[in-house]
Amino acid sequence: MVNSENFDKMMAEKVEYVQNVIKSFLPKKENCPETLYDALVYSMEAGGKRLRPILMLETYRLFGGNKAVIEPFMAAIEMIHTSSLIHDDLPAIDNDELRRGRKTTHAVYGEAMGILSGDALLNYAYETALEAFRYNFDRDSLFMAMKVLAAKTGIYGMLGGQSVDVENDKKGNLSPDLGMLEYIHKHKTSALIEAPMMIGAILAGAQKGEISCVEEIGGKIGLAFQIRDDILDVISTDDVLGKPVRSDAKNEKVTYADLLGLEAAKKKVNDITAEAIRLLQTLPGENQFLESLVENMANRNK
Amino acid sequence: MVNSENFDKMMAEKVEYVQNVIKSFLPKKENCPETLYDALVYSMEAGGKRLRPILMLETYRLFGGNKAVIEPFMAAIEMIHTSSLIHDDLPAIDNDELRRGRKTTHAVYGEAMGILSGDALLNYAYETALEAFRYNFDRDSLFMAMKVLAAKTGIYGMLGGQSVDVENDKKGNLSPDLGMLEYIHKHKTSALIEAPMMIGAILAGAQKGEISCVEEIGGKIGLAFQIRDDILDVISTDDVLGKPVRSDAKNEKVTYADLLGLEAAKKKVNDITAEAIRLLQTLPGENQFLESLVENMANRNK
Repeated sequence: MVNSENFDKMMAEKVEYVQNVIKSFLPKKENCPETLYDALVYSMEAGGKRLRPILMLETYRLFGGNKAVIEPFMAAIEMIHTSSLIHDDLPAIDNDELRRGRKTTHAVYGEAMGILSGDALLNYAYETALEAFRYNFDRDSLFMAMKVLAAKTGIYGMLGGQSVDVENDKKGNLSPDLGMLEYIHKHKTSALIEAPMMIGAILAGAQKGEISCVEEIGGKIGLAFQIRDDILDVISTDDVLGKPVRSDAKNEKVTYADLLGLEAAKKKVNDITAEAIRLLQTLPGENQFLESLVENMANRNK
Repeated sequence: MVNSENFDKMMAEKVEYVQNVIKSFLPKKENCPETLYDALVYSMEAGGKRLRPILMLETYRLFGGNKAVIEPFMAAIEMIHTSSLIHDDLPAIDNDELRRGRKTTHAVYGEAMGILSGDALLNYAYETALEAFRYNFDRDSLFMAMKVLAAKTGIYGMLGGQSVDVENDKKGNLSPDLGMLEYIHKHKTSALIEAPMMIGAILAGAQKGEISCVEEIGGKIGLAFQIRDDILDVISTDDVLGKPVRSDAKNEKVTYADLLGLEAAKKKVNDITAEAIRLLQTLPGENQFLESLVENMANRNK
């Protein structure tokens, strides 16, 4: 593990690097319709933790990867994540006007532009990932990385989980138990943690068994991350989170905190995180920063 | 050209073949969340003319293509087109409850599921197109076809045009002239006609200059198709169209029929169509059915 002061410094440097990578892959203003471009860039520049590209990069490094071919995928995963946030925030879904301390995209640009900018950003993620084919790099690995990106995003992954989640609220009529919550989180949240880590492993040339192990680790990190999210929604404040707390209660969503109680939910976060780190340590190579990041995600306050 | 009786028979056979191709690439029910799967399949099975996959196939054949590698792209282009229809119909955009004589997706499954099924279908189009990499086929051609698919769909293509179009209605404050209408149609409609034709040419091994010519032909066919759409919105009936006519007026959209008048708009459709067919005839190879299809699209009554 990296000590807390070093971790913060390293994390800040990595976030800055990721911001520059993302910026370099954004569409060119002069070729785009103005409002759609503005809405798309507004959402991408809203900040956020940039955890998914960093997890991709650190997993890539864990397996010895050191080429620029990873960069278009780093930008693409953050675009997909951001596109899902834009659509989640829409009035017909979570109806949130505030995210990361700023107005949400549809709150600024209107609902139609919220829908279209989310679409455009999801699509642009694929345009961006395809830039990787410009590098002189093994075609089959690139193809496998593209397949993972698309499968983990879609009906079998994040969007599938999101669709069950919208039925777990006041508009739906499901009464979720722990099994259904795990399904939702496994797909809605974990899929987009599994994907970047798997892509990092694939592009670094990891073996099949190692890629499966990374998928399992990503699943655990994602679940811990989501349960921590549910906990923060109960114990944090609007100012710290940059978005309204108790939003789950407002939307009548059932969460881990409800089903397990706060203490048991916190214990579950710790247990799953410890398992994820133990599995990380079974892999060849070592990445102390990655282990600290996983620990840090589980204990975050925002 | 093919005579009218033969054309209808050939068209019916081709539509049936395309339906089967699309069906074979739909997601597998058992692995999907139920409501999202139902909404996605509902939208894909709503019928429609399947013009884009047929244009792709016929351009592929024009250049001598005869392999199954075209099929995932045929399914993908129809998925992208359908996903854009689902989102166009949403209350925040065109607010249409009827399309192709059936209730629109959000009218049946609710607005949240309308948004998510459009997202899932757009994403699934890329999952589907990536299936082409399973074939033993030139990687660079597949990559180029993927790039065209993504670029023509996104902010530089269809979604870009759609974003300007939503500002051309009662919610926006633009007063479009012919130049802006051409921009909208060139992107909103033509881009998804250019893409399938270019992909057909690319996968059949057409030369660079031929691919550019095909792009130009697709642009003309798309523009003629859209102006015909505007005309039908004025002169047709709900029953024939399967959706409410005068929807442009309802949404306070400015159309070609408004700016040019009906007769001049009809003449423009004929002129552009004649140019498209002339350009088609400059290409090596011959496809009489494709020429008839282009003619037919320009004179369609629904």
